[in-house]
Parts: sequence; C-alpha cells; structure tokens
Amino acid sequence: MDIISIKDLTKGEIEKILDLSEFMEKNMHIQNSLLQNKILGTLFFEPSTRTRLSFEAAMKKLGGVCIGFATSKYASVEKGENLIDTIKTVENYCDVIVIRHPKEGSARLAAEVSVKPVINAGDGANQHPTQTLLDLYTIKREKGRLDLNIALVGDLKYGRTVHSLAYAMAMFNASITLISPEGLEMPDELILDLKKFNVTLKETYDLESAIPRSDVLYVTRIQKERFPDPEEYEKVKGAYKIRPESLKNAKQDLIILHPLPRVDEISPEIDQTKYAKYFKQVYYGIPVRMAVLALVLEAVE
Amino acid sequence: MDIISIKDLTKGEIEKILDLSEFMEKNMHIQNSLLQNKILGTLFFEPSTRTRLSFEAAMKKLGGVCIGFATSKYASVEKGENLIDTIKTVENYCDVIVIRHPKEGSARLAAEVSVKPVINAGDGANQHPTQTLLDLYTIKREKGRLDLNIALVGDLKYGRTVHSLAYAMAMFNASITLISPEGLEMPDELILDLKKFNVTLKETYDLESAIPRSDVLYVTRIQKERFPDPEEYEKVKGAYKIRPESLKNAKQDLIILHPLPRVDEISPEIDQTKYAKYFKQVYYGIPVRMAVLALVLEAVE
Amino acid sequence: MDIISIKDLTKGEIEKILDLSEFMEKNMHIQNSLLQNKILGTLFFEPSTRTRLSFEAAMKKLGGVCIGFATSKYASVEKGENLIDTIKTVENYCDVIVIRHPKEGSARLAAEVSVKPVINAGDGANQHPTQTLLDLYTIKREKGRLDLNIALVGDLKYGRTVHSLAYAMAMFNASITLISPEGLEMPDELILDLKKFNVTLKETYDLESAIPRSDVLYVTRIQKERFPDPEEYEKVKGAYKIRPESLKNAKQDLIILHPLPRVDEISPEIDQTKYAKYFKQVYYGIPVRMAVLALVLEAVE
Repeated sequence: MDIISIKDLTKGEIEKILDLSEFMEKNMHIQNSLLQNKILGTLFFEPSTRTRLSFEAAMKKLGGVCIGFATSKYASVEKGENLIDTIKTVENYCDVIVIRHPKEGSARLAAEVSVKPVINAGDGANQHPTQTLLDLYTIKREKGRLDLNIALVGDLKYGRTVHSLAYAMAMFNASITLISPEGLEMPDELILDLKKFNVTLKETYDLESAIPRSDVLYVTRIQKERFPDPEEYEKVKGAYKIRPESLKNAKQDLIILHPLPRVDEISPEIDQTKYAKYFKQVYYGIPVRMAVLALVLEAVE
Repeated sequence: MDIISIKDLTKGEIEKILDLSEFMEKNMHIQNSLLQNKILGTLFFEPSTRTRLSFEAAMKKLGGVCIGFATSKYASVEKGENLIDTIKTVENYCDVIVIRHPKEGSARLAAEVSVKPVINAGDGANQHPTQTLLDLYTIKREKGRLDLNIALVGDLKYGRTVHSLAYAMAMFNASITLISPEGLEMPDELILDLKKFNVTLKETYDLESAIPRSDVLYVTRIQKERFPDPEEYEKVKGAYKIRPESLKNAKQDLIILHPLPRVDEISPEIDQTKYAKYFKQVYYGIPVRMAVLALVLEAVE
Repeated sequence: MDIISIKDLTKGEIEKILDLSEFMEKNMHIQNSLLQNKILGTLFFEPSTRTRLSFEAAMKKLGGVCIGFATSKYASVEKGENLIDTIKTVENYCDVIVIRHPKEGSARLAAEVSVKPVINAGDGANQHPTQTLLDLYTIKREKGRLDLNIALVGDLKYGRTVHSLAYAMAMFNASITLISPEGLEMPDELILDLKKFNVTLKETYDLESAIPRSDVLYVTRIQKERFPDPEEYEKVKGAYKIRPESLKNAKQDLIILHPLPRVDEISPEIDQTKYAKYFKQVYYGIPVRMAVLALVLEAVE
C-alpha cells in the first residue's frame, strides 16, 4: 500500500487511519516494538525539517529505525542519477520509503517503481497526504467530528495543503468557506471537484465576516513572491492576518489551525488563547504518521 | 582489524567474508542483536548516499546504531582541523569507523591513527574494498563460483572499482577481458599485478566481440571530463553502451553488473531482462557490509 | 530542568553531575536502557560535529534515539520561521532538546518557550555548559580534585570555553593563572566575577614562567581574525604555542587540556607525551553528557 494522494483513499480508509491514529496516541508512551527491525528510508530531495523529524519520531516511537538524506545536495542525484534508479537502489536498504521531491508526480513514479511501500511527503505543489490526515485528525480530536464549518484562509491558488484538506473535508460533508485575496482564489477545477460531494461551499474576500460562523479556521501563508507589486502584498498581508481583534465575534469553541511554518499570518498573541491549536496540530502529526507507517507496513490490520 | 584495500586480504579471508555474507543474508529477516550497544561512526568527507545508507542499514540490521556526517561541509574540518585529530576525536564516540575521503591514502592514515577498526568506504581514486567484496559476493551468489569469464567495460584507466575487482577476480582464477575506449585502458602496472596470478587476460576495444564468451559483464561509467573533445566523448559513449541488441549473442546465463550510479551506459530496457543484476547487486551490499562490520568488531569468529 | 549556563548551577549540582558522570563511565560498557523510548532533538543551527556526535553517542549509549539537523541551511528557519515557533514545533517530536545557535541568548529563549528540557550546546560567544562540565570532569578524574593550579592559555577575551571554565574552577577554589597575548586578556567584568570566590588569580603574558607551577594547562585557539595585522598574529601564535621544550620545567604530573579542534597551538609531538589529555578529554565528554541527559530527563535522582 502506498500513500501518494488523499484522493487515492476512500472515506472508509481515512476513517480507519484516524481511528488507528487515536489508538497510537493513546499508547504513545508505552514501549512499542510494532516496527522493530523495520527501516524507514527518508528521501528528502527538498529539505523539510518539520515533516522529516515528524516521520522519524513516529518511526522510532514504533521501535523502527531510519536512514536517509535531508537534502539532495549531497545525494547521488548530483552525479546525474535519475529518480527511478535512486528508488530501485534505496528500496534495497529499507522497508518503507518516505519521499519529498520538488517535482509533481515524483512520489507516484517512485511508488510505481518500488516494491516497497512509498509515502508521499510532498511532491512540489501537488500532494502531501499525511499533512491532510493530521489536519483531519486534529479537527476530529479537538471537535469530535468533521461535518463542521471550516474556513480556509490565505493563498488558495497555490496552497497544496488547502487543496487537499478542502477535498477531504468535502468527503466528510463539511461546510467550506474559501477566503483568499483577489488573484489567489482556489482554482475552478478544484472547486468542481469539491462540488461532487454533498458540500456547502462559499467563496469570499472578506475574512472578518466569515469568522463568526466558523468552527475551524485554517490559516495558510501568503507568499510575497506571488505578487508583482510589493505594495499590493503588504496590503493583502495585513487584511488576512489573524489578530486578537479578528476573533471578537468568533465562536467560543473555534479552533485555529495552520500547517506551519507561519511567517506573519497569525499574530503571536493568538498563541496564548484557547483558540490556538496549531502547535497541538504538530503533536498530532506523530500518532497520525505512526498509524500510516504501521498500516503501509502491514503491522496492523 | 581494518578493511582498507582488497589487496590487504588473503584469498582465505575473502572467502571467509563471502561465507559470512551468505550467513547474514539467510538470517537477515530474523531479529538480530549481534552488534547491540555498538556505535558505527560514518565519516563521509565526500558525499555518497548509496554507500552511507548501505552501511547504516547493515549496522542497524545487526542491532547497532550510527552517528556521523554526510558531508565535510559542516564538519570541524572546516575550522582547519586535520584528519588525524578528527579521527582521534571521533574514535572516542564509536566502536568502528567507516570513512569516505576524497584523498588517496586517507583511510590508511585513519586506520594507523585509530585504535578502533576502520573500514575504507572509498579514498579518492584509490580503494573501495566493500564494493569489491559485494561485487564478488554477487557473482558467487548468482553464478555459484568465481573462476568465470568476466568482461570489465568502460573507463578502466581511472575506475577504482574495476581495478580492485580485476585484482580480486584474478586471485580467484577468473578469465578477464578488459574492454575500454582508446586512452582509457587499464594502466600497465595494474596489468602486471594481475599477471602475478594464474589468470587469462585479454584486452580489446571491441565490446561486441567480447560479449558472447562472457559469464559476467561488469559495466562502468565513462566520464565526460576524461575527454578534451566532447565529440570524441559522444562517439565513445555510444560504442560502449549496453543495448538489447548488444546481447543478441550473449550466453543465456550472462549477468550484467554495474557499481552504480549509472548515467547512460546501460539502456533502461535492459533492466527488465534476466541479465540485469545491478539492483540485486545493491541488495547484496547489505549482507556483505553486515559481515564486514561483524568481523572487524569481532562479533563473529 | 534546563542546562543553559554553568552559572545556573550550584556547586552542589555540579558535584552531583560529576559523580553521576563517574557512575556513567563505570557502567558505559553494560547494556543500558535508562533512556529507552526517549527521543533527543539535536537542533544545530550552526554546525558542530564534535558536540553533536558526542551528544548523539551519549543518548544512544543510554538506549535513547535522536532526531534533528546538523545545519540550519536545510531547516525551516530558511523559510523565515522564528526560533520560538521552531522550538514549539520540535518539542512535540522529542523529550529533550540540545540546541546550538550562533546567537547569544537563544538557548535561554528556547528553554523559556519549551516545556521539554533544553541543553545549551553553545550559543554564540556566550555559554557551552557541557563543555565546562567535561573539562571539570577531566580534571577531577585525572587529578582527583579541582582545587589546583590551572593555567588558561590563549584568547581569553573572546574564548567562551575559558570564561566558563575559569568561573567554575573559581567556585572550586582553584588558583588560576590567566595567560594571553596583549589585547586578548580576560575582560574586566569576568575578572570581577571570579574575585567573588575564594580564588588566587594571576595575569601574565608570559607562558614560560607560568608553566612550572601549573597542575593543569588549558590551551585554546588564538584566531587569526582577531588581529588586524597578520604579522602580529604570527608573532603571537609562536609565543603561545606548546612545544616539547615548553614543558622542560613542568611538573611531572601536569595535564594539558584543549577544547579542540586545535589548529596549531599544541605541537603534535606533545600528543605522545604523558601530559597530553585532550583526546581523553573528548572521551570524558560521553559520560558527562550521559549524566546530563539522564538528569534533565529525570531518569536518575
């Protein structure tokens, strides 16, 4: 079994992963040797400290070990080796592969080539399914259910994270509000994808008006590079930043998530509030990745 | 015991390593704690993902752990420390050292300085003995014996791998055919070395004519940098590339090996054929390195 | 419990760490699972092979595992993440954090932010407490006591190591001789700090005259960058270098220490003498860091 895109998973499979994640979380502090003797190969052709450390921690908490690289700068690819050969080599050293690669489709290619299970840890602007799974798990754990009002804020055009999460939340019958600056709206084909599900969908440029009805506020970065005019960027950045006053009409049990790293989208003052769950979200990444690793290695049923 | 050069090993010692490798391979999937509490220091002053991951996987399969660095770019050497001091430091942290270094002779120097066993994982153009051992093991496992017709193809002048393998195969009474472009022939002093053994030796520029009588075809890279004239390189590259049609008169049980990474020397169509054993060869690197680690740490007799 | 600065520790706490280090050293070769299931996060925003490998070896000898990075070049900080967010993220993946950072005060900041224990592995020119602890442990182990004549040689103005060690030795009633070139004397405020203790303090530019009465000679690097005039540097470098002839009037049981890496301050001929203890000092770093890790994780009382 490979985990390449959230779209490959059925609702039932996602539910199974979320249940298993809960089991992992509950037993996280008990000595665990479920993946003893198993080796995880972490192939980060593009650096990602957060995701890499999270996978490594998950693997080690299950009694497994890790080998790999944190950047392709010092890998054989530098000598001109193609991805297929790298995968056909590394699969001999390990039992499961986690791959992050700057090029879209490379994780799928790796999975096709490898006899060992492959987990996509981000392939360019495309997919990062364990991020979506941990987003879902965070919402489920904090709110008890997924059929909620979720507002996705920020760069909805290029943001890989929000694309996958919107899709997954649509599967679970959420009401989705899409909030972005002009020019960074969610692409039409993705909107069409969402509409296949039984989903209530709103689009707006106005963050303030959307907050009061939200159960979940999912904030993402707006990158300076997207704007030809730096002044335009500054204006937009200010308008989509979450500050204490942004939350004055928020529901009492609103939760705020962010895939991190954040730069400036959430004021640090928010961190101390009951709404802030983005560091808890980081924590939930561990049991979710434990569940995914155990599943693809068939260490659980 | 150190493993610095294949030439330091007697025929008996090589046979012992190959036997132990077979034992390791057979027991690879059983929980193994032969090197529990042992620490391998991987000092890669020059990056080599393949060799590093292979050693780390081997160590971990034996229950040991690893510390080290994947490039000297972020090591103390940057502060001007010499190799001797680095070795005398790191040997305090580990039980065995694997070193890759761009400079010839550095592994030997490390072994002289260190009280802990040192394994050479490549010192410049000089030696890479565990590569030779895994080459031998692959041939032995796939063909049952070593006194075979082996053809070494490619850059035989600068190729560290083929130098050592030719020497080792000569020890085991192989018939060796050396196939290279003009100007990249095996150096005379190495030829003289081989002739000390009971060995049949042929040299040719003609790949096609050499294939039919070969049991083993060992292909290596021809590097562009060796040719002052790029056109000359293109011609040579084409003539020494293995394509499906190159094999039309090959023995039915020919095996093709390559130390990898390959760039363009073997057409990808060959990968699907029964001849292709270069990824299997990667796999065999694990039991061979397990054997070498267990031996130098005296965990086996 | 965090370990940020040697000044945070009482004399009693230091003694406890030294005793525990001795216990760790004695039991280093026994299977140890004191920190089983514990994860050390090694956050090296600035590379330091020596310190990183030493901590990792210590953790692994206690049955724990490690995750982390060896340079911030490939960490999320590159995306503009601030230290606080990095710490609040990584603390979810591990049980204890070791941080090296180029900026003074960053380890203290990390400790304030993190719910997990933080160990400072060097914050710029400021503190590196486990270096000081291993220096003390080396002296204690080699000489049996700390109230000795210690000479600190080299760059006493910028040298983080000598600042902390002088302070700690003063706590233990040592007699301290400060030997530096003109312009690199120990800063006045640090001298005042030392004088708070019951300490005999001498300052001199003359290395030769100070050696005969010393029990411990602690040598540090003098960096070329400190001198506007390269000729001045060459002169100073020669005058403060330890050569065999420098020791002709030394006590028979003098020990020479150095935090390493050395460049040219101690002639390699000294390495073979009974005085040289700087590589032994490296070795002592392991039990000391085992003790520190076990203490902050409350695995011992």
